[in-house]
Amino acid sequence: MRDTNRAWYFAARPDGEPDADSFELRETERPEPTSGELLVRVNYLSVDPYMRGRMRDTESYAEPWDVGDILKGGIVGEVVESESDQYDTGDLVTGEGTWADYSVVDADDVAPVDPTVADLPAYLGVLGMPGRTAYFGLLDVGEPKPGDTVVVSGAAGAVGSVVGQIAKLNGCRVVGFAGSDEKTEWLTEDLGFDAAINYKTTDDYRTALDEVAPGGVDVYFDNVGGPITDAVFTKLNVDARVAVCGQIAHYNDEDVPMGPRKLPMLIAPRAKVQGLLVGDYATRFGEASERLATWVATGDLSHRETVVDGLENAPDAFLGLFSGDNIGKQVVQVSTPSS
Amino acid sequence: MRDTNRAWYFAARPDGEPDADSFELRETERPEPTSGELLVRVNYLSVDPYMRGRMRDTESYAEPWDVGDILKGGIVGEVVESESDQYDTGDLVTGEGTWADYSVVDADDVAPVDPTVADLPAYLGVLGMPGRTAYFGLLDVGEPKPGDTVVVSGAAGAVGSVVGQIAKLNGCRVVGFAGSDEKTEWLTEDLGFDAAINYKTTDDYRTALDEVAPGGVDVYFDNVGGPITDAVFTKLNVDARVAVCGQIAHYNDEDVPMGPRKLPMLIAPRAKVQGLLVGDYATRFGEASERLATWVATGDLSHRETVVDGLENAPDAFLGLFSGDNIGKQVVQVSTPSS
Repeated sequence: MRDTNRAWYFAARPDGEPDADSFELRETERPEPTSGELLVRVNYLSVDPYMRGRMRDTESYAEPWDVGDILKGGIVGEVVESESDQYDTGDLVTGEGTWADYSVVDADDVAPVDPTVADLPAYLGVLGMPGRTAYFGLLDVGEPKPGDTVVVSGAAGAVGSVVGQIAKLNGCRVVGFAGSDEKTEWLTEDLGFDAAINYKTTDDYRTALDEVAPGGVDVYFDNVGGPITDAVFTKLNVDARVAVCGQIAHYNDEDVPMGPRKLPMLIAPRAKVQGLLVGDYATRFGEASERLATWVATGDLSHRETVVDGLENAPDAFLGLFSGDNIGKQVVQVSTPSS
Repeated sequence: MRDTNRAWYFAARPDGEPDADSFELRETERPEPTSGELLVRVNYLSVDPYMRGRMRDTESYAEPWDVGDILKGGIVGEVVESESDQYDTGDLVTGEGTWADYSVVDADDVAPVDPTVADLPAYLGVLGMPGRTAYFGLLDVGEPKPGDTVVVSGAAGAVGSVVGQIAKLNGCRVVGFAGSDEKTEWLTEDLGFDAAINYKTTDDYRTALDEVAPGGVDVYFDNVGGPITDAVFTKLNVDARVAVCGQIAHYNDEDVPMGPRKLPMLIAPRAKVQGLLVGDYATRFGEASERLATWVATGDLSHRETVVDGLENAPDAFLGLFSGDNIGKQVVQVSTPSS
């Protein structure tokens, strides 16, 4: 018999706010790669807000998790068994794996990781799916022009922190909403945001925006929804663009949430509001990865990861996303990289 | 002293639903054109939903009316005095004038009218601002492709009726929402809509859409807002486009109206929602006018006007827009054309 493997399984669909009852850690036999596959020892596991959608029993862009399924997510790890010519044991790879100590992946579905470019967790953040989401969402949907005022909600998260910095590289004035003074200080002092609003200690977002974005809003990159978005929509300039990347404020709602109707607000500014999924840009991932890596190397793009230690704490790391525990990208360290 | 002139003035800003108290008919001296101007005997006057916005004391795309101002609007009429080389007395022109028997206009701001192409009221509808709004809103914002399913709210109105027919010319399946059986029959029997839903006698718009648009919605041209729009948003296909042209259901709301939050609905279909003002396409009005006139001439584009007789009834004609009294374009006949 092969060695054992710990893995998290989907135990129950949550109603509203998920909790530990949705997760079950099991010890099973370590999986075995077949032809074209790799067995990867997971070093880091990604937990992401979009996974809340996979907990629902409805078809959507991400395949729903069935109760009893092993949980899936982005990983970085080391190849320990290879049934593919593409990778040798010892190689570092990233791609979609499982919430487990060891994960079997198809060699065609992973990408190599170069630890000299950035630390491994960065491959789940700025150099991974969140970084690419920020890149295409801001540039292709938001279409920022120099001099534009760009507002970002969830600005200290994995996507928002990259959005704001790319907007600065584009010559924009950048304002971020985030949920703590530590976060807003990171945005303005380390990432170069022009202003940041702590939405938990600010009463009136519209007045706050009048102060830091007196010329109105040209681009709004929305990761959050709710009252922040309600306020920003009252400040849209003519020809404003809104990229709807996430709506984390509403992911745990069981009923359709109600709020101020926004369509009447779009006519006078002729604003454009567009939903965004990074998968639509798959043919251009190489472009994004190359530019993001260059900006990281030159220091134009700072990044930060919040690391929770131990596979056993993965559910807590996921649940913490909804209370904003993370600064930058939230990852789980499952094992220590061997080199 | 010159002859007299009857004209409507803005008497009071309404709260909520406007009524006759906002309008005052006065008899004054007939205005006199100065250099470059024309005195036009008004034959037909246009009343339009967007005018409700001009009754508010807020800057917007259309200049607000001040209390005491003479009311403005589109007119078709006959030049009776000319202080311009561009037009002679007896010429027919259209442009922005006043709610009056006689209106002074700048010769540079009006366009000639050819009564052999269409009857005069059509120049305030299919061949006027509403027709151009339909043309650019559908083609430039809605971007219809053959085989797309296009849904139109306010489908029997001045704009919606043209939108649906242009969508048919583009090879689309077209579904309209309208407020009476007479209207829905007009849409399907005379205008070639594939289906029409009487929103006043239908309880469940989502189920109704499932029947007539089983493949979902690719383009939604929204003139109305409210529950119709709430239902259509649940049916948006991947890459759907929503043109927000009007929101007549909300024009009389005094507070910001509440409704189901729609931004979370945009992510999975990556839908685009865009506000639209026809004035942005001013440099291409010639293109639209030429094509619309051709389609009218060939019979590809049907049109209908609801004519209220008498300047004294202009406020009633305007107020009737909000209860859907009109089929096609609502106009007021102020005088009989002299030829």
